[in-house]
Amino acid sequence: MSKVITFGEIMLRLAPEGYLRFVQASSFQALYGGGEANVAIALANFGIDAAFVTRLPPHEIGQAALNSLRHYGVDTTCIVRGGERLGIYYLEKGASQRASKVIYDRAGSSIATARKEDFDWEAIFEGASWFHFTGISPALGDNVAEICAQALGAAKAKGLKTSCDLNYRRNLWSREKAQEVMSRLMPQVDLCIANEEDASDVFGIKAKGSDVSQGSLDHGGYQEVAQTLAERFGFSQVAITLRESISANDNNWAAMLYDGRDFHFSKKYSIHIVDRVGGGDSFGAGLIYAQLQGWPLKEGLEFAVAASCLKHSIEGDYNLVSVQEAQALAGGDASGRVQR
Amino acid sequence: MSKVITFGEIMLRLAPEGYLRFVQASSFQALYGGGEANVAIALANFGIDAAFVTRLPPHEIGQAALNSLRHYGVDTTCIVRGGERLGIYYLEKGASQRASKVIYDRAGSSIATARKEDFDWEAIFEGASWFHFTGISPALGDNVAEICAQALGAAKAKGLKTSCDLNYRRNLWSREKAQEVMSRLMPQVDLCIANEEDASDVFGIKAKGSDVSQGSLDHGGYQEVAQTLAERFGFSQVAITLRESISANDNNWAAMLYDGRDFHFSKKYSIHIVDRVGGGDSFGAGLIYAQLQGWPLKEGLEFAVAASCLKHSIEGDYNLVSVQEAQALAGGDASGRVQR
Amino acid sequence: MSKVITFGEIMLRLAPEGYLRFVQASSFQALYGGGEANVAIALANFGIDAAFVTRLPPHEIGQAALNSLRHYGVDTTCIVRGGERLGIYYLEKGASQRASKVIYDRAGSSIATARKEDFDWEAIFEGASWFHFTGISPALGDNVAEICAQALGAAKAKGLKTSCDLNYRRNLWSREKAQEVMSRLMPQVDLCIANEEDASDVFGIKAKGSDVSQGSLDHGGYQEVAQTLAERFGFSQVAITLRESISANDNNWAAMLYDGRDFHFSKKYSIHIVDRVGGGDSFGAGLIYAQLQGWPLKEGLEFAVAASCLKHSIEGDYNLVSVQEAQALAGGDASGRVQR
Amino acid sequence: MSKVITFGEIMLRLAPEGYLRFVQASSFQALYGGGEANVAIALANFGIDAAFVTRLPPHEIGQAALNSLRHYGVDTTCIVRGGERLGIYYLEKGASQRASKVIYDRAGSSIATARKEDFDWEAIFEGASWFHFTGISPALGDNVAEICAQALGAAKAKGLKTSCDLNYRRNLWSREKAQEVMSRLMPQVDLCIANEEDASDVFGIKAKGSDVSQGSLDHGGYQEVAQTLAERFGFSQVAITLRESISANDNNWAAMLYDGRDFHFSKKYSIHIVDRVGGGDSFGAGLIYAQLQGWPLKEGLEFAVAASCLKHSIEGDYNLVSVQEAQALAGGDASGRVQR
Amino acid sequence: MSKVITFGEIMLRLAPEGYLRFVQASSFQALYGGGEANVAIALANFGIDAAFVTRLPPHEIGQAALNSLRHYGVDTTCIVRGGERLGIYYLEKGASQRASKVIYDRAGSSIATARKEDFDWEAIFEGASWFHFTGISPALGDNVAEICAQALGAAKAKGLKTSCDLNYRRNLWSREKAQEVMSRLMPQVDLCIANEEDASDVFGIKAKGSDVSQGSLDHGGYQEVAQTLAERFGFSQVAITLRESISANDNNWAAMLYDGRDFHFSKKYSIHIVDRVGGGDSFGAGLIYAQLQGWPLKEGLEFAVAASCLKHSIEGDYNLVSVQEAQALAGGDASGRVQR
Amino acid sequence: MSKVITFGEIMLRLAPEGYLRFVQASSFQALYGGGEANVAIALANFGIDAAFVTRLPPHEIGQAALNSLRHYGVDTTCIVRGGERLGIYYLEKGASQRASKVIYDRAGSSIATARKEDFDWEAIFEGASWFHFTGISPALGDNVAEICAQALGAAKAKGLKTSCDLNYRRNLWSREKAQEVMSRLMPQVDLCIANEEDASDVFGIKAKGSDVSQGSLDHGGYQEVAQTLAERFGFSQVAITLRESISANDNNWAAMLYDGRDFHFSKKYSIHIVDRVGGGDSFGAGLIYAQLQGWPLKEGLEFAVAASCLKHSIEGDYNLVSVQEAQALAGGDASGRVQR
Repeated sequence: MSKVITFGEIMLRLAPEGYLRFVQASSFQALYGGGEANVAIALANFGIDAAFVTRLPPHEIGQAALNSLRHYGVDTTCIVRGGERLGIYYLEKGASQRASKVIYDRAGSSIATARKEDFDWEAIFEGASWFHFTGISPALGDNVAEICAQALGAAKAKGLKTSCDLNYRRNLWSREKAQEVMSRLMPQVDLCIANEEDASDVFGIKAKGSDVSQGSLDHGGYQEVAQTLAERFGFSQVAITLRESISANDNNWAAMLYDGRDFHFSKKYSIHIVDRVGGGDSFGAGLIYAQLQGWPLKEGLEFAVAASCLKHSIEGDYNLVSVQEAQALAGGDASGRVQR
Repeated sequence: MSKVITFGEIMLRLAPEGYLRFVQASSFQALYGGGEANVAIALANFGIDAAFVTRLPPHEIGQAALNSLRHYGVDTTCIVRGGERLGIYYLEKGASQRASKVIYDRAGSSIATARKEDFDWEAIFEGASWFHFTGISPALGDNVAEICAQALGAAKAKGLKTSCDLNYRRNLWSREKAQEVMSRLMPQVDLCIANEEDASDVFGIKAKGSDVSQGSLDHGGYQEVAQTLAERFGFSQVAITLRESISANDNNWAAMLYDGRDFHFSKKYSIHIVDRVGGGDSFGAGLIYAQLQGWPLKEGLEFAVAASCLKHSIEGDYNLVSVQEAQALAGGDASGRVQR
Repeated sequence: MSKVITFGEIMLRLAPEGYLRFVQASSFQALYGGGEANVAIALANFGIDAAFVTRLPPHEIGQAALNSLRHYGVDTTCIVRGGERLGIYYLEKGASQRASKVIYDRAGSSIATARKEDFDWEAIFEGASWFHFTGISPALGDNVAEICAQALGAAKAKGLKTSCDLNYRRNLWSREKAQEVMSRLMPQVDLCIANEEDASDVFGIKAKGSDVSQGSLDHGGYQEVAQTLAERFGFSQVAITLRESISANDNNWAAMLYDGRDFHFSKKYSIHIVDRVGGGDSFGAGLIYAQLQGWPLKEGLEFAVAASCLKHSIEGDYNLVSVQEAQALAGGDASGRVQR
Repeated sequence: MSKVITFGEIMLRLAPEGYLRFVQASSFQALYGGGEANVAIALANFGIDAAFVTRLPPHEIGQAALNSLRHYGVDTTCIVRGGERLGIYYLEKGASQRASKVIYDRAGSSIATARKEDFDWEAIFEGASWFHFTGISPALGDNVAEICAQALGAAKAKGLKTSCDLNYRRNLWSREKAQEVMSRLMPQVDLCIANEEDASDVFGIKAKGSDVSQGSLDHGGYQEVAQTLAERFGFSQVAITLRESISANDNNWAAMLYDGRDFHFSKKYSIHIVDRVGGGDSFGAGLIYAQLQGWPLKEGLEFAVAASCLKHSIEGDYNLVSVQEAQALAGGDASGRVQR
Repeated sequence: MSKVITFGEIMLRLAPEGYLRFVQASSFQALYGGGEANVAIALANFGIDAAFVTRLPPHEIGQAALNSLRHYGVDTTCIVRGGERLGIYYLEKGASQRASKVIYDRAGSSIATARKEDFDWEAIFEGASWFHFTGISPALGDNVAEICAQALGAAKAKGLKTSCDLNYRRNLWSREKAQEVMSRLMPQVDLCIANEEDASDVFGIKAKGSDVSQGSLDHGGYQEVAQTLAERFGFSQVAITLRESISANDNNWAAMLYDGRDFHFSKKYSIHIVDRVGGGDSFGAGLIYAQLQGWPLKEGLEFAVAASCLKHSIEGDYNLVSVQEAQALAGGDASGRVQR
Repeated sequence: MSKVITFGEIMLRLAPEGYLRFVQASSFQALYGGGEANVAIALANFGIDAAFVTRLPPHEIGQAALNSLRHYGVDTTCIVRGGERLGIYYLEKGASQRASKVIYDRAGSSIATARKEDFDWEAIFEGASWFHFTGISPALGDNVAEICAQALGAAKAKGLKTSCDLNYRRNLWSREKAQEVMSRLMPQVDLCIANEEDASDVFGIKAKGSDVSQGSLDHGGYQEVAQTLAERFGFSQVAITLRESISANDNNWAAMLYDGRDFHFSKKYSIHIVDRVGGGDSFGAGLIYAQLQGWPLKEGLEFAVAASCLKHSIEGDYNLVSVQEAQALAGGDASGRVQR
């Protein structure tokens, strides 16, 4: 059985109940999440042996984050304990014309203050076949960027496939800094995943004729973007998620996959949103799963889009769907009829 | 005043909060429901003297189920106490493309282990004018099928009108067994209620040109189904609910009624779903109410569809709407404007 | 900085959780609200110095209402303590075809039993530039109508701008009584705000060709209504909110503003409703804010409609949005994309 | 089987969660209760046919109160619908040295505005054997006092036993008024129930050497009080509950019963309180039950004290214990060991 | 590192919130627990490699039980999936004189319907050093008793230490049946754990001069019981927990350990109870831990009693305390001072 | 009227529900608190004009903290907005022998990164009569210690009375550092408040013959400590709270006050704890209030102890009691009888 390693930050996610605004909250739903942890969870739900690597504070709040991973079957034995705090993000769920809002409070977290010596990648990658990380990790600081570089080097040396979700976060670093750091890491990445804005934000590669804030997308433009990315960094595949935001409650969702030769476009789903955080991560996990199974690219893409479509109906960052559920949707049953 | 008797199983319904998946739940909303209990509740809300007959365990969980009926004014004095357990169904509410999921844990319940001697139908039907049950009860076991047969016989002997909602449940019995048992009971039934799949599942009577999993429905096909049912079993009326599943959140809802001569089709409602469990039961209750009032068939059908449309906006199995509310909707006010 | 005074009743709002019906509730969400209090809160959120004037019972339930105002920065120093009880309204949130329901229990409240001597309008209006009230206050009783008249007189004497939201409540007074009392107060009002029914209910001024219960609205008709109102009472401006009720979950929302010469019509928003109570109040607050800023009328109208559109996405009576959020929506970003 | 009728007011009880103060509450637990309703519920739980008589508003809040009675098996068929509002009491649960706090908002309730013609006592008492009310009802107004007098007259005429719990409420009437009104009603009462303060508050009959606010009680003093009461009004029995308040969490609880000849004193229980509201009512219900069973007085007293001891461990006004549970405690098992 | 295997049933535990009675519940807290699962959890919290063996239904409710174990680090890889249902126990938390109440609904569970072939004990015990089970498992049926016998045989054959908590459950089997079956299993058990009633219930060995329902315990009597047990079955150690029930809120807690020569008595703790379910299991886990560490018997006993004392302060069946916390209490710090 | 200024940090307080451990939490109650903020709230509840000075991040989480102060009437107009984050403390409530646990996550908060220029003490102290801070503030960093020094200097220059609660926090600084910094600040302080450990921790002044972890306290020892403190730093008064920890649920609570000549000892209260955080702060507020009223020292001390005794019965950091409530307890009514 194949084993997947993901590396990054897991945070405490504090969200007011329902659609309450931050200033109305007298309690916070306490969940955990983060790009790479979300990928590990989704893969574990698909039955994959998935390990998440990070650094967590030794206290009970760190332990609670670790337990949330263990709960869903993620291998946590490579997690290092140390540092002072667990990063936090506050999430206010939007509705209708009111957008969701995220306030990050992640500076000084245990992973952001980690050192290279904390991780023994040789040992971590023992028996593994895939390594995944996102652009958030190198944005946490030069030390973490360096850890990513080390991990990537070790992964390629051991023959693992590698994937990276660009995931640009403007509040963590500037576009210039992102471009500089990511450009150094990308040549070691096989599969590049991006949303409709990342390529432009990180590498200045812009899809012509699209305005994401208006929810209009142009297929031709994205083909161009994918091709440019693949050429510049030598990715064997580039996947781009295509989100059309109608309102905070309603989005359209699809994706494309470029394999250096062909452009595959998925079905498009109209989604009534329960929780859209982690939508992109669940797409990445779907792609990785499909490739580990050796499925044809188009079938894998449809699986990944269906799996991530379902993610939007699930509370929290984590995608808790089975392979069968994603396949049923990809296969055409979107009616939501009661299953008894 | 007319009195209605319904007979069947009431279960504890355990559902995670909101749209949480089963594996995310740290608590369950605890409600009670079951096809025939739901009909009794709906009728009691319409002001009808409705009694529900079943067998419940003597402990407090059984008592809680009984109290839930008493709460809404259902006559529980004919409920027998005995046996070991209350049946349970776990309900996970779906959203968007993710379907709702039901896990039954009803084997060995007090009603499933009941014996004929537990019920004195002569006494129960004293002063009653209508008897209703569903296809779920005979599916609980040969003993319960036999109890249904006895009840039907006693009902007809005393001159009651009888109705049955086919309600096929594949996890309780096979189609073959269902057909065999139900075919024996049906000749004593006056009003047959079915959804778009039941006739096919139970009696192999299939509407041509319809594919319910695709949400497409064909009026002509259902006319054919109703006619075939009426002819085969001698029903004086056949009612079929017509659900189109757009997603787990959005359904269209309508119904038809065949009286042996005419086919009446109701208005169709586009529903944003709060809870669709019990939708069919509330339709049945609406039909029974209308017939007890002696309303014209078309008016009764529109009333029943409006009442059951409103059910979809109410949490739990029970339809808690008044005659006035259902009539207002049937009469055309679907705007949902605040009533002060 | 300008200071706004609003006067009226604040009530305890008791609502079952989620979409539960009254008869299903085992707890009530406890919030506070009332037309003029809502306006004060919205203005305080816009950064305006806003004071709310009322009379509250001296006990802790009265204090809790006062604290809810203080929480969001409203000046409560002119609130008088006395009387026996805080008015209550019970709110059942509707869904789909089922309408929201309000049960008022406000008779005998501290404000309804207030006397003229309770308020020293000279002192209250010191330093203020705007006075706002609604048609609910004079409906509470002749004593409160008299207090409104006194306040209006003192406001005009001190050179304040005045505004009134007609807000007809049929359970508080008859149309005849409303017309009689309101006709006496209106000549001292500069800005008149109404919804699509108020003008007809209070003054018998009906928009031709519209049937609000059907959700159809006719622009020409409203122009006529606004013009008639302005002419009859000498309002310098008349604003009318235009709500189209598709269902309890979905409304369209827009407004018009007539300045004695031009008719300005705003954009129309399709809203997925979280809570529509206080929608009109938040519109009024938006208009007042815009006029205090000296914005052009059309820009102010769009701001007010955007602010009140956002209100529909917020739980409770109070509009908790910032000027920036309302401006962003008015400026065109309605996509609800996550803000990180 | 014997049937008991109780008459009085049932209120909506709004309490913050746990030990929160009123000013901290963002929701209220919504329960229902009132002296005489509590007695009916307790009796229904003992298996007695108990009917509660009152007047409730026709809206859903009134219906919810009625449903809460039906839930536990109380006969609600004699409840009259009419009037405007359901009385409310706000309850803040105390802890340690901080006392519980009750704010009444019951003026103008449907029962307080009832008229004599609303109740047909001849019909209500058909088949009944006991009538119970408390001193709260006549305190609601002269109209309600008059209704009590009528009911008492009809009860005695039909040969029912009658009981009254003095239950003095200082915020409803003065001691003078109470003494005047109650003195007129008492001669028709067989069993008088009082707590350690009532006799003094209502009739100025004071136990020597006791200071209830200090929690010290003197048996001799209470004997004297009981004797004086019996002599003055001709009660066949006088029961007095003896509460020693150590803190808001800890009380001692016992009672005495005087039958005109002997003084019976019960065991004393040290109680860790969950909810002490309705403690006295559950004692009264226990006494009535024991007398209907024809138990010896001492045994009945111990039963009543045990039942009401258990009430203190139950959330809400209602005593939800079975005869068996109360008997087991009266019989000596106070260890609270798990029952599997 | 030593590895411990425990075998038995894990159930869904459904409990009303706080101190609500079953008939008051509108939701259930959903936790998981069972004697042997509780021991595994406690050991995992102590840092021990602990595996729990059982059979769980393949559906999501079974998965949720499994996840609850994984959450706290228990090895679940030997759990077999099959059968129809997860056993349930309903728990009503008592207070003051009102006892806690447990209603079992465990018949037909996946483990109760397991067959010998489901478990490969050779493989399961690979690398393990201790096997633990309780008297509940053989009570589930002859098949499960047989599985226990097999497991015990395999454990002894592989040189593991074995322990059994007698845990008599009267609703699962008669005393006679228990004695017969347990007598066959005991000779393979090294450490026998019992509470103050088990020895009497299962083997008719009664401590003289004690009456547990009165909370009085006699040290001498328990010495006699332990000695008799050790002699009859050849246990190398016998441990007995000594609970004194003052009320449902307050218990005293201690234990004794007999090693064939000496009787060790622990300190006695006065406990204010949060949740006493699993108290005995956490004591067993403490003993096992201490013995794996090779601690002196008295020190181990004090550790086990301290750990299980702390369990009473923790919600749910699971003991979630660290070795350090238990040691600190055993070492004398019982003041409960805030740890910052 | 006198005005009090307090300065320090306010944090978000995240606590699991009820007695859940951190690792069991799926939500956190979200309250706000901090030593000096707590004092301001308590004073505002006593009717004092109290202002809290701090620096809060400009985002909504900072706003929520500010609103919580405004809610209870604290003047927040001197609060500076800036910096990145709101400090957090996680609170796990202990029970019985299990201690409460606090995990601080406050590094890098807006107040910890404040600069001297952020506060204009001249303006802040305009019209004020008292300045209060605690030893936590200088522990946040040299910058904050410097701000405290500035504030103290300005306060004394303007003739304000000053008070400081030593409040040693070992995780913020070493004893050596604390002694050095605090020794510089103390000479400007009039009233010194300490708990039973602070004097020893901060200044190495130890009460002979007491061992706080054992809950034993020696009056003579504390007299000595108070005298030594007063002599070393010239305090006009020294107050020491005397807590005896019986368990996490039960504490005894008293205090002494030394005025340079006499030692006043208060009554001692046995408290059943709801929430003990902020107990010391509420005592300080009581003392300040009493002195502003000019009450005799012994009366003021009893008031402060009674007020802080009541704090232990209130959820959250904030003491929400009125002057009347504290006086009633100080006057002797500790029975917790219901107040209607």
